[in-house]
Amino acid sequence: MIKAGIIGATGYAGGELVRILLGHKNAEIKWYGSKSYIDQKYADVYRNMFQLVEDACLADHLEELSKQVDVIFTATPQGYLASILTEEILGRVKMIDLSADYRIKDVSVYEKWYGIEHKSPQFIDEAVYGLCEINRDKVKKARLVANPGCYTTCSILTAYPLVKEGLIDPDTLIIDAKSGTSGAGRGAKVPNLFCEVNENIKAYGVASHRHTPEIEEQLGYAAGREIKVNFTPHLVPMNRGILVTEYASLKKIEKKDGSFAYPSYEEVKAVYDNYYGKEKFVRVLEKDVCPETKWVEGSNYTDVNFKIDERTGRIILMGALDNLVKGAAGQAVQNMNLLFGERESEGLELVPMFP
Amino acid sequence: MIKAGIIGATGYAGGELVRILLGHKNAEIKWYGSKSYIDQKYADVYRNMFQLVEDACLADHLEELSKQVDVIFTATPQGYLASILTEEILGRVKMIDLSADYRIKDVSVYEKWYGIEHKSPQFIDEAVYGLCEINRDKVKKARLVANPGCYTTCSILTAYPLVKEGLIDPDTLIIDAKSGTSGAGRGAKVPNLFCEVNENIKAYGVASHRHTPEIEEQLGYAAGREIKVNFTPHLVPMNRGILVTEYASLKKIEKKDGSFAYPSYEEVKAVYDNYYGKEKFVRVLEKDVCPETKWVEGSNYTDVNFKIDERTGRIILMGALDNLVKGAAGQAVQNMNLLFGERESEGLELVPMFP
Amino acid sequence: MIKAGIIGATGYAGGELVRILLGHKNAEIKWYGSKSYIDQKYADVYRNMFQLVEDACLADHLEELSKQVDVIFTATPQGYLASILTEEILGRVKMIDLSADYRIKDVSVYEKWYGIEHKSPQFIDEAVYGLCEINRDKVKKARLVANPGCYTTCSILTAYPLVKEGLIDPDTLIIDAKSGTSGAGRGAKVPNLFCEVNENIKAYGVASHRHTPEIEEQLGYAAGREIKVNFTPHLVPMNRGILVTEYASLKKIEKKDGSFAYPSYEEVKAVYDNYYGKEKFVRVLEKDVCPETKWVEGSNYTDVNFKIDERTGRIILMGALDNLVKGAAGQAVQNMNLLFGERESEGLELVPMFP
Amino acid sequence: MIKAGIIGATGYAGGELVRILLGHKNAEIKWYGSKSYIDQKYADVYRNMFQLVEDACLADHLEELSKQVDVIFTATPQGYLASILTEEILGRVKMIDLSADYRIKDVSVYEKWYGIEHKSPQFIDEAVYGLCEINRDKVKKARLVANPGCYTTCSILTAYPLVKEGLIDPDTLIIDAKSGTSGAGRGAKVPNLFCEVNENIKAYGVASHRHTPEIEEQLGYAAGREIKVNFTPHLVPMNRGILVTEYASLKKIEKKDGSFAYPSYEEVKAVYDNYYGKEKFVRVLEKDVCPETKWVEGSNYTDVNFKIDERTGRIILMGALDNLVKGAAGQAVQNMNLLFGERESEGLELVPMFP
Repeated sequence: MIKAGIIGATGYAGGELVRILLGHKNAEIKWYGSKSYIDQKYADVYRNMFQLVEDACLADHLEELSKQVDVIFTATPQGYLASILTEEILGRVKMIDLSADYRIKDVSVYEKWYGIEHKSPQFIDEAVYGLCEINRDKVKKARLVANPGCYTTCSILTAYPLVKEGLIDPDTLIIDAKSGTSGAGRGAKVPNLFCEVNENIKAYGVASHRHTPEIEEQLGYAAGREIKVNFTPHLVPMNRGILVTEYASLKKIEKKDGSFAYPSYEEVKAVYDNYYGKEKFVRVLEKDVCPETKWVEGSNYTDVNFKIDERTGRIILMGALDNLVKGAAGQAVQNMNLLFGERESEGLELVPMFP
Repeated sequence: MIKAGIIGATGYAGGELVRILLGHKNAEIKWYGSKSYIDQKYADVYRNMFQLVEDACLADHLEELSKQVDVIFTATPQGYLASILTEEILGRVKMIDLSADYRIKDVSVYEKWYGIEHKSPQFIDEAVYGLCEINRDKVKKARLVANPGCYTTCSILTAYPLVKEGLIDPDTLIIDAKSGTSGAGRGAKVPNLFCEVNENIKAYGVASHRHTPEIEEQLGYAAGREIKVNFTPHLVPMNRGILVTEYASLKKIEKKDGSFAYPSYEEVKAVYDNYYGKEKFVRVLEKDVCPETKWVEGSNYTDVNFKIDERTGRIILMGALDNLVKGAAGQAVQNMNLLFGERESEGLELVPMFP
Repeated sequence: MIKAGIIGATGYAGGELVRILLGHKNAEIKWYGSKSYIDQKYADVYRNMFQLVEDACLADHLEELSKQVDVIFTATPQGYLASILTEEILGRVKMIDLSADYRIKDVSVYEKWYGIEHKSPQFIDEAVYGLCEINRDKVKKARLVANPGCYTTCSILTAYPLVKEGLIDPDTLIIDAKSGTSGAGRGAKVPNLFCEVNENIKAYGVASHRHTPEIEEQLGYAAGREIKVNFTPHLVPMNRGILVTEYASLKKIEKKDGSFAYPSYEEVKAVYDNYYGKEKFVRVLEKDVCPETKWVEGSNYTDVNFKIDERTGRIILMGALDNLVKGAAGQAVQNMNLLFGERESEGLELVPMFP
Repeated sequence: MIKAGIIGATGYAGGELVRILLGHKNAEIKWYGSKSYIDQKYADVYRNMFQLVEDACLADHLEELSKQVDVIFTATPQGYLASILTEEILGRVKMIDLSADYRIKDVSVYEKWYGIEHKSPQFIDEAVYGLCEINRDKVKKARLVANPGCYTTCSILTAYPLVKEGLIDPDTLIIDAKSGTSGAGRGAKVPNLFCEVNENIKAYGVASHRHTPEIEEQLGYAAGREIKVNFTPHLVPMNRGILVTEYASLKKIEKKDGSFAYPSYEEVKAVYDNYYGKEKFVRVLEKDVCPETKWVEGSNYTDVNFKIDERTGRIILMGALDNLVKGAAGQAVQNMNLLFGERESEGLELVPMFP
């Protein structure tokens, strides 16, 4: 039985970790960490857990916690883990960090986009970017997993095969992303009130959202060089779900007869299938079916598809996931399974809920 | 392995049956029946099931189906099952009917409220009303289970202990119920369009909703006599969930000192605990905590609580459940487990999803 | 031109006052008072007002304001106006208070339900309860108008004719109310976050909501004696709108033939028409049409209707309004029109917006 | 008094025409045309109009109608007006067509994208594309106004000044649009049911939506040459509102010192202000403020803004409007005002409703 501790268990991602781990056969939660609700019963904070969780919340005491468990999930604000992580802790326990602290290899990029000093850059190098479908083997051997962001997981998985195979020009990549409101967290802020979000849609963080460099770094690895993308998030009046719509210019490829032309639907589909055909949690939809967030709600799936626009020479890529599952807690548990040699989908065989 | 068939698998309740049965260890679906989508892939109708269900929809052929499976769920319009059920079929297979055809013992009451003739009244007597917490033992021995309505399950479970113990005057019972829109089904009707339901609330079926006689019959058994209640359903702009708020006059009871007075909080709580303390799927909340539909979403729980109003001599009862789970498919699977000697909660240990 | 000042202009009710007054031919806003946004442009707080309102927010300085305007609207927390109102101010300016400070005649009832000391009980007597349809003549002569609460306006208007005419037993009155979330105000609190309210419904303030004594007092006047009611509010995932469903036992009345029986549909309808037939802002719907909040959204209407349940001897009353308009700012402007001899509907001829 | 007739008065755009015209000082509706609700009271179809509209629906009889009114609005399916319009009718009455029949000058483009034969191409030439801010003078003299589509109004107004002034490369233009569900109309279809739209977001009509050629044609006029764009609409769980997010490569311009560089914020802002500074219904927001659909809800405004991304050399343009007002009925009334020499904003001074 894997003993797990959660720092930040009372945020939405923390709550989702609890929901998922309660259904995991070989894991049990030993520590419900919270800054705001210490000593309160966890089920008083999330009443869906009434009679399911009897524990009270404990302080976010990483040092002490690291002695009691096998794995720690940190669902904490940016900079928090970086400020308290030590070699000693990493020697004792596996760390899965849901914050951005160890996602970006270039510390100056992190510090510029996040506007804070990184307090433990010495661990950045060894941290493995926990996008399971791409870094599976590295995750298995890691001590410290940087769990990807919600927007980034969706953005990268949707474009990765085409960037990797050189079918699109990555410098033309534009990512228009739409997210449910749980991505904004449980903090009490006016812009997240029901009446401000409901019956409304807006862009935010235009040309400045922090997930941009994360996407650029990871897709840059796929492209084999540095790239720059436009990434624009939008707030949608729904609880869960991220949809990305991505635009890129297709590159002409050599056809059998020696001519150069845009790849056909079948050729692009074959590339996706090659990468994701055996992936349980990435579903390449059938022709002309557009991903919808509702079809993956509550599950660990990412649904992807694409449409070629011959008129403009561009391809439109679409991807959908549940930001709290594959975009956060689900992927974190998937990483935990990899770290501990569990079946990768253990605890994650959640059937999407519709409607 | 229990072989299950579903007639009406492409409605919302049918879809929820599929979601739940996919997670059941000892059941498998052999027949996805549908009137409207015959020969189409089930996953094309409910794309959340992509790669999870490979089957195509089959016709609603009860006779043939009954030869292939152990249990049949009928999630069909009122009158359908009654018009085709035979002794032969009942001899071969267990029937769990999610329609109202066998819920009401007095066929004239059924015919009056539903406005149709009952075509097989000979089976009404043996049908067991499948409210598991109350009729558990009878269900175990049944051939034909009448799975309760969504409103009725919530309304009855919320009031049952107090009616049974005589703490309230059942003739004063008023049930004000609020339901998410999935209860209205997947039929394409103008009043169920997004723009008609969203940002709106209304009562409907006032003093005439068909769940009224079902509630009256069942609570009448608890009261030991015929009762009449007011039941008013409302349509709420959300997908899932039913909340009932019930009002009744408290009866004064004899206290230890021989005086007569209203029961105290503790006395009422003790009654609820006595009935539900060991029930996994009914949670009696802590003092002053009001049930919320979101806390049970996606799960088989019914959350109940109450508040005594000394000023008016009334008690306000509240209950919440997910209309598609405990209010339909979840309870149907709970009944299946009882019928086949499975662990009652098998496949139903769904942790409520929040947010 | 009536010069108006608003204290609390940056709450939702304050914002709605601005929206309505911008369309009023003979009124102009001279003071946008705000505690939290002093010196910020009003249109930066409510960006719908961009290019429509150029003013910045001013401090909530009642004394100074009273010298500059003809009427002051206070959309402020309970106790605020009571703590600063003076005879001098009342001598200079008409006051329309959207808080509860002067709604309840019995100061001990106010202090008990609101849990605060009333700091200027000397003004309670002269304050007129501004339910225009009922107290129209008194409002015209008032200096201080206590603008009714949102739930209370809806609850009272729906039941008033039947209580007044003795068609129902007021002691049996049960009011089950459902409100959109704007009624909870713009304060940043976790329970009002989008993800907490969306896809959820709950009761709150059960047997303890502060609008209860206000309803009891006003309907008590109609009944000619003290009454007690049950009032239960619910939070609905929509921005605007209140729906009340009210239950009461009908009283048998003497019929033409000398017998006693429940009133017929026509008899009850005639009573409603008698009271509201000439009222612009109360619409008695046609037979069997249930009020829906969406049909009054954005407007000053209250839609009411009823259904007699012969089976139980009860009548079910229903009423719907927009909590920010007839439930707050609209009625406040209606009161202003009465105070200043304007056409009562000036600025209020807002056509409901659907969808 | 302008006498107006509406063909298709019972769709959502038709209903919005009624709402707006009821507030117009110099217009009255003489004919509520409807295919589905003939002889039913209009207020029975849209109950918000109870006591406001007493008329019953009439058949969609264009010939007869044209003899009774001064202007006809057709809010009808594509192809309908084209199939019945005659020179005679055009000689008698002004026509404002909310369908796409006369929007596209090249009839082969229309026929290809709409998949139907155009039955009266002889009127296409004289039809004026009724985007008021751009074609104001032409509209004034027209007999037949092709009222622009909802997506197109928003898409074009947002990009127009930059295309016209050559600040962006129109061939790089990508338009990612998000719409509320009222844009899908009031037809009873499963994909528009509450439970299918709510808690969901999806793209649709990818690379094939019919508003694409309309945008291309109009922006092509601004560019002075044929252009091709990518346009992707998305369905958002809200009633009203369209938000477009547009991406384009900036062109370097000559600066004062003779060098070539991207235009600065101030330079782009000056272009917008030049085009829209005097336009009542287009609001260029302040720096870094992103348009939100809620800020224009119920009004005739289009809010626009932009953000320059130096990193990628692109500019992100954003625009928001209410699809039923500026995107349909409001603009139609604005066109009517132009046609009849009314004040352009008469009936359209609707303050946006928030929340």
